[in-house]
Amino acid sequence: MTLGHVDVVKRGLKLFDRVVIGVADNPAKGPLFDVDTRLQMVKETFSGEPKVEAVRFSGLLVDLAHQQDASAILRGLRAASDFEYEFQMATMNRRLDERIETAFVMAREDYTFVSSRFIREISAMGGDVSELVPEVVMDYLCKQVPVEGE
Amino acid sequence: MTLGHVDVVKRGLKLFDRVVIGVADNPAKGPLFDVDTRLQMVKETFSGEPKVEAVRFSGLLVDLAHQQDASAILRGLRAASDFEYEFQMATMNRRLDERIETAFVMAREDYTFVSSRFIREISAMGGDVSELVPEVVMDYLCKQVPVEGE
Amino acid sequence: MTLGHVDVVKRGLKLFDRVVIGVADNPAKGPLFDVDTRLQMVKETFSGEPKVEAVRFSGLLVDLAHQQDASAILRGLRAASDFEYEFQMATMNRRLDERIETAFVMAREDYTFVSSRFIREISAMGGDVSELVPEVVMDYLCKQVPVEGE
Amino acid sequence: MTLGHVDVVKRGLKLFDRVVIGVADNPAKGPLFDVDTRLQMVKETFSGEPKVEAVRFSGLLVDLAHQQDASAILRGLRAASDFEYEFQMATMNRRLDERIETAFVMAREDYTFVSSRFIREISAMGGDVSELVPEVVMDYLCKQVPVEGE
Amino acid sequence: MTLGHVDVVKRGLKLFDRVVIGVADNPAKGPLFDVDTRLQMVKETFSGEPKVEAVRFSGLLVDLAHQQDASAILRGLRAASDFEYEFQMATMNRRLDERIETAFVMAREDYTFVSSRFIREISAMGGDVSELVPEVVMDYLCKQVPVEGE
Amino acid sequence: MTLGHVDVVKRGLKLFDRVVIGVADNPAKGPLFDVDTRLQMVKETFSGEPKVEAVRFSGLLVDLAHQQDASAILRGLRAASDFEYEFQMATMNRRLDERIETAFVMAREDYTFVSSRFIREISAMGGDVSELVPEVVMDYLCKQVPVEGE
Repeated sequence: MTLGHVDVVKRGLKLFDRVVIGVADNPAKGPLFDVDTRLQMVKETFSGEPKVEAVRFSGLLVDLAHQQDASAILRGLRAASDFEYEFQMATMNRRLDERIETAFVMAREDYTFVSSRFIREISAMGGDVSELVPEVVMDYLCKQVPVEGE
Repeated sequence: MTLGHVDVVKRGLKLFDRVVIGVADNPAKGPLFDVDTRLQMVKETFSGEPKVEAVRFSGLLVDLAHQQDASAILRGLRAASDFEYEFQMATMNRRLDERIETAFVMAREDYTFVSSRFIREISAMGGDVSELVPEVVMDYLCKQVPVEGE
Repeated sequence: MTLGHVDVVKRGLKLFDRVVIGVADNPAKGPLFDVDTRLQMVKETFSGEPKVEAVRFSGLLVDLAHQQDASAILRGLRAASDFEYEFQMATMNRRLDERIETAFVMAREDYTFVSSRFIREISAMGGDVSELVPEVVMDYLCKQVPVEGE
Repeated sequence: MTLGHVDVVKRGLKLFDRVVIGVADNPAKGPLFDVDTRLQMVKETFSGEPKVEAVRFSGLLVDLAHQQDASAILRGLRAASDFEYEFQMATMNRRLDERIETAFVMAREDYTFVSSRFIREISAMGGDVSELVPEVVMDYLCKQVPVEGE
Repeated sequence: MTLGHVDVVKRGLKLFDRVVIGVADNPAKGPLFDVDTRLQMVKETFSGEPKVEAVRFSGLLVDLAHQQDASAILRGLRAASDFEYEFQMATMNRRLDERIETAFVMAREDYTFVSSRFIREISAMGGDVSELVPEVVMDYLCKQVPVEGE
Repeated sequence: MTLGHVDVVKRGLKLFDRVVIGVADNPAKGPLFDVDTRLQMVKETFSGEPKVEAVRFSGLLVDLAHQQDASAILRGLRAASDFEYEFQMATMNRRLDERIETAFVMAREDYTFVSSRFIREISAMGGDVSELVPEVVMDYLCKQVPVEGE
């Protein structure tokens, strides 16, 4: 979770009454933190925002949206290459459940080129990423014992 | 106004309580129809949708949004090249008035490559565009006397 | 193999007398089905099209094209991000064998955002992909025992 | 007409028995040369290729394709930005006449960034474009009296 | 001239001993200000930077570069759509004069979506662009009598 | 290392007094050759260019740049998809160390679609890549015992 993600959630709050953040339980993707830690980080980051909830989920995102009675899936767009991936995903989700719309907001322009992947790589090499992630995530990154290889 | 635009408005209705369509009074852009005719076409197309309004405006879009007490500007995205133009516009609008968010929805995929410009050119050359524009617009296009040149 | 691929082959039949589908024997890429199953699926899908053949191959695509006495390699284009990959591949193939041209056709627009990767992920999570793949592939997907992880 | 266009036609000859070049009679687009001169330039450039014909046309390209009994419209692709325009056009043409396919070939990579617009601008400012256009076009460019403004 | 342009020049100063800004005398492009006013604005904006010069020019940019004994043409890149235009231009310039290299720097990310065109449109409609252009340009924009149409 | 990389270094020599090539010691990325072999290949390729140095490094690129007293990181751009990755990296590097600029040059257009990945795949399948890599690399590729899988 980067400050870009936080920014997208805050923009979502201008449009929607409630924002539910789904934290995927997908060990196959090799996330840096396990699902419980990520859920905890999201909850701490948004502890002051009563309209934001965080839930863990596995399976299809449209099923989560439907269970949560959501009218839309909220996604942030950063750059043209995001766009194609996001369009593929939105098209698939539309085919899986036509009732759920996908709404996109644009991340703040100084987050346009911030990606989780770079943050992870830089952090692993000892670079300072404190201006790119929420304080909560920073604490978890520092606690983490560095691992060799990938 | 193409069926792609109509599709975007309908998606907006899933997300928002009210959708206001701003019809720009901008003769410098050389639109095919004058502002009154375009306003009339929009009104007729959405005559069955009480939650859709159409207003003419000149000046800045964010000012219209503010006057209408809108929380967001709704835009449809079609393809990667749209994206950069839309991002420039959303960034500018954000700088002009931070309270107004821009929300994007994705047009139905078979409208991905439908553009007003092609419709206009094809119609001018006698091609059939009836599957690409609302019936109301089709009627106006047919009434119009073809003009030479551009 | 998605309905997008089937659509590309059908368009190829309008342009060429014969279309040969090369099924790559490339276990390193971790395909969902082994090469024999994939070859069988392709053959069943096009069983009614005498002008379509399917062959297994390993090695360079231009070598297959040359063995098959093909004038061109046929590829489908979907979106801008495909484009660069396809251009790299076409350039490489041209350098490897100048006699073989690469011809591109455009998949039907409602297949623009359909990708094998999403279909595979959705299918693995229990989503319905029956409108996106040929019936034959659907049968094989259903027979397959789901596997954990990736 | 640039050497990129010539390259595309030559690639088309590998795929098709006959290539017909349509020279658009469209004075509204403000072409550098009138339709007769352009037709003449095309004919001279391909005078040694009996399988290439040049015809003038106005109206829809699909109508020309149909009159010529063509199975496909041949287009060259250069770069990602071409792609979206070409996809819009191919989609429109498919909707106008489903029988006509659009086939794309890739221009030689050193023509990737050659555009008619730049050639025209550079030529107007006295730059040497002789390596970018066929000799025949070069002759016509030199004969032309330079004009002020645009 | 936007703050994005100023940012690019400042980055250029980190790489090169001298930066010469060419102000094009090209009335056909319909610039907002005439060439003398633009030259004056550039000079005032960089009055504190002795390593920056501004010259008016007409004709080819590579000829200016050669006259100025420059090793490179410096360009700012903002977004993917810039990229293709810039690549076409750099390729053309390389063909016109191989001695002159084109070097690109990346504008600051909050200028990524700032374009002269939007600034001009917003300013014409009475919007505040003071955070997007240098103070000097702002003064000239305010002095200008608004004109109707385009 | 492809001929595209060599071309970028040569362009860099037109702009800068000294070019230092950093060879990353990053076994996690699974390079084809180990870091010592790659360093050796770079040194042999540029043995005739006294202004080019090669050093091995691990950690952050900006730290290497700072140690080497470099004013800029030099990168080659090939195509629009490169662009986003390069922008993300340049933004990150700028945030990590503001003193170091990133300068981009454009690879020669016939290297636009040459990628290390394709070269590696083609070489592994027995294709001839001798026109795409420096002679030195070709020698190392030939010496290498082919390995199964990836």
